[in-house]
Amino acid sequence: MPITLTDVEKAREKMKGIVHITPLDYSSTFSELSNNDVFLKLENLQKTGSFKVRGSCNKLFSLTDEELKKGVIAASAGNHAQGVAYSSKMLKIPCTIVMPKGAPLSKIEATKRYGAEVILKGSSFDEALHFAIEMQRKTGATFVHPFDDEAVIAGQGTIGLELMEQLPSVDAIVCPVGGGGLIAGIAMVVKTINPAIKVYGVQALSCPSMKHSLKAMTPIEVEAQPTMADGIAVRKPGIQNFEIIRNYVDDIFCVDEMEISRTMLMVLERNKLLVEGSGASSLAALLYKKIPIQGKKVVSILSGGNVDVNFISRIIEHGMVEAGRFVHLSTILIDKPGHLQEFLQLITELEGNILSISLEHVGENILPGYAKLILSLETKDKNHVEKILTNLRERRYVIDL
Amino acid sequence: MPITLTDVEKAREKMKGIVHITPLDYSSTFSELSNNDVFLKLENLQKTGSFKVRGSCNKLFSLTDEELKKGVIAASAGNHAQGVAYSSKMLKIPCTIVMPKGAPLSKIEATKRYGAEVILKGSSFDEALHFAIEMQRKTGATFVHPFDDEAVIAGQGTIGLELMEQLPSVDAIVCPVGGGGLIAGIAMVVKTINPAIKVYGVQALSCPSMKHSLKAMTPIEVEAQPTMADGIAVRKPGIQNFEIIRNYVDDIFCVDEMEISRTMLMVLERNKLLVEGSGASSLAALLYKKIPIQGKKVVSILSGGNVDVNFISRIIEHGMVEAGRFVHLSTILIDKPGHLQEFLQLITELEGNILSISLEHVGENILPGYAKLILSLETKDKNHVEKILTNLRERRYVIDL
Repeated sequence: MPITLTDVEKAREKMKGIVHITPLDYSSTFSELSNNDVFLKLENLQKTGSFKVRGSCNKLFSLTDEELKKGVIAASAGNHAQGVAYSSKMLKIPCTIVMPKGAPLSKIEATKRYGAEVILKGSSFDEALHFAIEMQRKTGATFVHPFDDEAVIAGQGTIGLELMEQLPSVDAIVCPVGGGGLIAGIAMVVKTINPAIKVYGVQALSCPSMKHSLKAMTPIEVEAQPTMADGIAVRKPGIQNFEIIRNYVDDIFCVDEMEISRTMLMVLERNKLLVEGSGASSLAALLYKKIPIQGKKVVSILSGGNVDVNFISRIIEHGMVEAGRFVHLSTILIDKPGHLQEFLQLITELEGNILSISLEHVGENILPGYAKLILSLETKDKNHVEKILTNLRERRYVIDL
Repeated sequence: MPITLTDVEKAREKMKGIVHITPLDYSSTFSELSNNDVFLKLENLQKTGSFKVRGSCNKLFSLTDEELKKGVIAASAGNHAQGVAYSSKMLKIPCTIVMPKGAPLSKIEATKRYGAEVILKGSSFDEALHFAIEMQRKTGATFVHPFDDEAVIAGQGTIGLELMEQLPSVDAIVCPVGGGGLIAGIAMVVKTINPAIKVYGVQALSCPSMKHSLKAMTPIEVEAQPTMADGIAVRKPGIQNFEIIRNYVDDIFCVDEMEISRTMLMVLERNKLLVEGSGASSLAALLYKKIPIQGKKVVSILSGGNVDVNFISRIIEHGMVEAGRFVHLSTILIDKPGHLQEFLQLITELEGNILSISLEHVGENILPGYAKLILSLETKDKNHVEKILTNLRERRYVIDL
């Protein structure tokens, strides 16, 4: 039986005090850049750092006392793990999370902090999942699926209810799509309340499973490339999710890695918010004009903020390179006093700010009597980078990037 | 004439629609760690990324039509610059900001985006300030002081009004202190409304000007060391600020660089919020138990979020090293096949995650036949680092940090 508005309203009642009502913030930066009135739904400030806790919390409330006693099990190296662990802690039931070996330390620690037993098994997510299903059969614990589950979908749908109260005049909602639990719940709710509201999904170009499935009219599995938006890198949509999305979602668009990384950097820098790759994808779609709307009130769902802290530096660097705010370059200099100084003088005149510098004398392409200079520069934008490169090359320096 | 509650209430009326009412968020992480109920006043989500805009906005509203026509001028390489520039844009008046040469590109660009004319002059802040004052004499523009000004103090005080509405039962407020405008405004408001509320200030240990001034009973100038909390690195308090603080503030405490950087990292990782060094100082004081309260409802003012994006990576690394989440080490190996492999095998067994690796054959302390291995490892905590080091040393490796 398909889920209804009543299911979602019940879900909301049950999860009160466990799950946050997250803020909906107007962003003048993104409004200006996308020619819309853009509001950000801050699920990155949700308990456990992502919306996932809504679905798992509602799932746990749907269990019988008997089932609750046996506890739950899930396979996840990400937000679902923390959502299930936290919900289990709040309901005081046993919880086991299976993660693949090599899962980030920070995610393991965060999940353990919520009191879950973490088992590291298998070298890929699929192997961990396989082990979790096997273990479920032995222990009789309930397996909590990350998206293909009615109670989970109804839980995610509570975001739709909040939005209708926070911004009743919303014209469109843009939402990241992986397995499809989040957008299915939201779309069902808002379209039931007001069918005129547009609902658009966003996927990473590296894993466009829902987009291809909608085209094929049935859930299909796609090849996945590595992506910063690992939270929505789901190779095959959920079956129930697919049905709801086919009925309610207006269209699905894709964003590439460059668009995601630039958006993450911009949200951090301008809005002071840490958003993970998948969470930034909906905003990236607006920023890069994938969504066919102008001058409308649009909500972008920032679905989560769990970025491994080691990864943040990489994202900043990557985003800055992409935006022309940072450039790595190397050149070959004559290894005699004065030549290095002369080159650096030129960089200073061109207003490049040197962030790191190294000089090597040994290497495949370094002839005796020469040295290779490697520089990282802070720059203003792509034009500034172009100006620096052109200028150096005009002076006969051979520059490699 | 000292400012009154009425001045602040008027300020609030005037700045409606220009300045945000910022969220006050409960933080379970910091509540648990500090044994209090901790609420975060998110001035990092304020327009221009810091509270400064409140003061400058109110200052501009205090000017006559004649004065407005001549515009305003300020010297700042930081939040004050953006606050004055944005307020000027909203009131459609000319604005000149003098910054020292070498100010971060991101701050210059952000200030220009608000339409201000940015002049780069002098090699230090004091030189820029000197030039701005000279220029003010010539042009007749109004000089906007960052803190020692009644209208500015009244503007910052609007935070106090918001807090009294958002959490009327607040027991204590912890607030960063530089020149003293922010805490003076807030303290005057909340103590007037309810004298039982405690107000504590926090300074960077590198620049404890207000703490020393209170001891000396008069504003004195201190030596300043470089600090991550550059927003509160003010060598001498404002005179008006000092008088208000002496009357209303209960005590001032200091936090060191390590405490600030760990707190910044923790807020980013756990709360998904980007907070600058000075903004994190109030929370650091709670986290590191400087404030003599337990089991109370405490508001920590996160005063701003303007961190130069290049600096974020440094803070993350620094915070991770401090927390034992990251370690740099080097050792000397015999330069024969198998020795490197053997060492790395050991690191893997000890659960260190290798982030970067390099091997050098030439160097001051590297004898022929040996090589120097340099590693960066992701680790769990200080105990984990200790365990790795002990283990390696027991096996006769000489480890340098």
